[in-house]
Amino acid sequence: MTKPNKNYSIGVDIGGTKMSAVLFDGQKVLADYVLATPKDDLEHFMIMLKALIEPLQEKARVSGAVIKGISLGIPGMLDYKESKIVEAPNLPFLNGLKLPENLAAKLGVEQIKMDNDVNCFLRAEIKFGAGRKYKNVFGITVGTGIGGAWWHNNEIYQGAHGGAAEAGWLIVDFKEGMALEQAYHKLTQNSPAALADEAYRGDVLAQKVYDEFGHYLGISLANIVNILDPEIIIVGGGVVESSDLFLSRTKKIMRQYIKSPEAKVVKIVKGKLGSNAGAIGAAMLIS
Amino acid sequence: MTKPNKNYSIGVDIGGTKMSAVLFDGQKVLADYVLATPKDDLEHFMIMLKALIEPLQEKARVSGAVIKGISLGIPGMLDYKESKIVEAPNLPFLNGLKLPENLAAKLGVEQIKMDNDVNCFLRAEIKFGAGRKYKNVFGITVGTGIGGAWWHNNEIYQGAHGGAAEAGWLIVDFKEGMALEQAYHKLTQNSPAALADEAYRGDVLAQKVYDEFGHYLGISLANIVNILDPEIIIVGGGVVESSDLFLSRTKKIMRQYIKSPEAKVVKIVKGKLGSNAGAIGAAMLIS
Repeated sequence: MTKPNKNYSIGVDIGGTKMSAVLFDGQKVLADYVLATPKDDLEHFMIMLKALIEPLQEKARVSGAVIKGISLGIPGMLDYKESKIVEAPNLPFLNGLKLPENLAAKLGVEQIKMDNDVNCFLRAEIKFGAGRKYKNVFGITVGTGIGGAWWHNNEIYQGAHGGAAEAGWLIVDFKEGMALEQAYHKLTQNSPAALADEAYRGDVLAQKVYDEFGHYLGISLANIVNILDPEIIIVGGGVVESSDLFLSRTKKIMRQYIKSPEAKVVKIVKGKLGSNAGAIGAAMLIS
Repeated sequence: MTKPNKNYSIGVDIGGTKMSAVLFDGQKVLADYVLATPKDDLEHFMIMLKALIEPLQEKARVSGAVIKGISLGIPGMLDYKESKIVEAPNLPFLNGLKLPENLAAKLGVEQIKMDNDVNCFLRAEIKFGAGRKYKNVFGITVGTGIGGAWWHNNEIYQGAHGGAAEAGWLIVDFKEGMALEQAYHKLTQNSPAALADEAYRGDVLAQKVYDEFGHYLGISLANIVNILDPEIIIVGGGVVESSDLFLSRTKKIMRQYIKSPEAKVVKIVKGKLGSNAGAIGAAMLIS
């Protein structure tokens, strides 16, 4: 039994490790899929991206629904005017690509939208998740890379040139000129999940690495709070599952280095929408 | 010859080294005075503050003008609701003081306003100085201490708890947990002006200190740009007079660590209003 005139959208969150997609009716997720992100080349990537989306299109079709649009969350810096990916540090074969145009042709659809993946994550958490009651919210995702987004004045703040809220690029080690994301890659040797497993199994060195990462993250969040003074920080991304390895250290260090006594009340919470947050936030771009 | 119905205001910029005051007609400075800031105790401080303001009141009186109000720029963190100074790191005898109330009683006036000194500096530069053509402007002052303020959406951004834009408290040395202002005090041994004189006289060590400070400042401004992505940064405060000792280094380091290629176009300029900027911005609080 199918209802006529149903309007769905499809949101895709392209992560450095996994790609998730949701079929979304504007309020809830009707179906979701996950695939590993191909890291070898663009051709393989496009095949798998198509394979991720097509079953959701089919699902909509058999239920008699119309797909109003498809939208992508991208882990990188975007040229919104040109609808082009400027730089995706963990998926370099996407650099310079007009992915929406390219994918629209492959799927035979008219138009595809895209936004930065952390913007998508934060948009979803603001509307449906941990940020619902707040007006001034910083979102940070820790996964393959580290990204940030800031919600203020009822919108995601973009900056004067689209370069705001680059949480992963805050310098944490002045002497080496090392940014937070670089420190994270160096510490976890690009295998945060495997390292987390070791830490949970009791490996003291692995625990120490996460402890040190917690310290770096705390310094970076203190710097963010000393500039933005938000009400709440929402943490997302794949590494949230392992956040008990570092988040208490992060909170302690962060509060230690926040200057304003009043601003120290800032909350840090994990996102509430789990691994679908980014895909939901992408789907929300379709109105 | 006096004109009737002239409405003036008095603005005072309380710095860690100097206090400046202006008599202001809403567009231009009619008279200005400067005194050294007493650092010994509150009693001496209040006497000198009164001595700074009274000649301007007198000047207004003899010209037949009405003083609409007096306003103070304070180098510290304020409780705006209580009109109280929370913490003035370089004038600790002001901590916890309701200075406006206290001074109003001493001067026999009804009410005095106050604001953070960097907010005052930036407000004046936005309206009359280097920020006139811009909508998204970060202001940083380097004097006895280091402070910041951010202009966006036609106002000074305060944050959720009044703790935003604390540029002096960005951590620049992760290992020692040292903030920019602490590094500045340590490097200049609390005598930036004397050290600048030595550097100008060719002292290589003094030049090296300013070079290192330029590096720290560049890292901090890069972190600010990576979060806020403003159009322009306006630098003020007493040390601006010596800015050729460090500002080219600051610019180079800042651009190196800004992530977004687009955001790298951010301008850094010196304020245009000179040492009166803060006092003008304080006077502007009187409408």
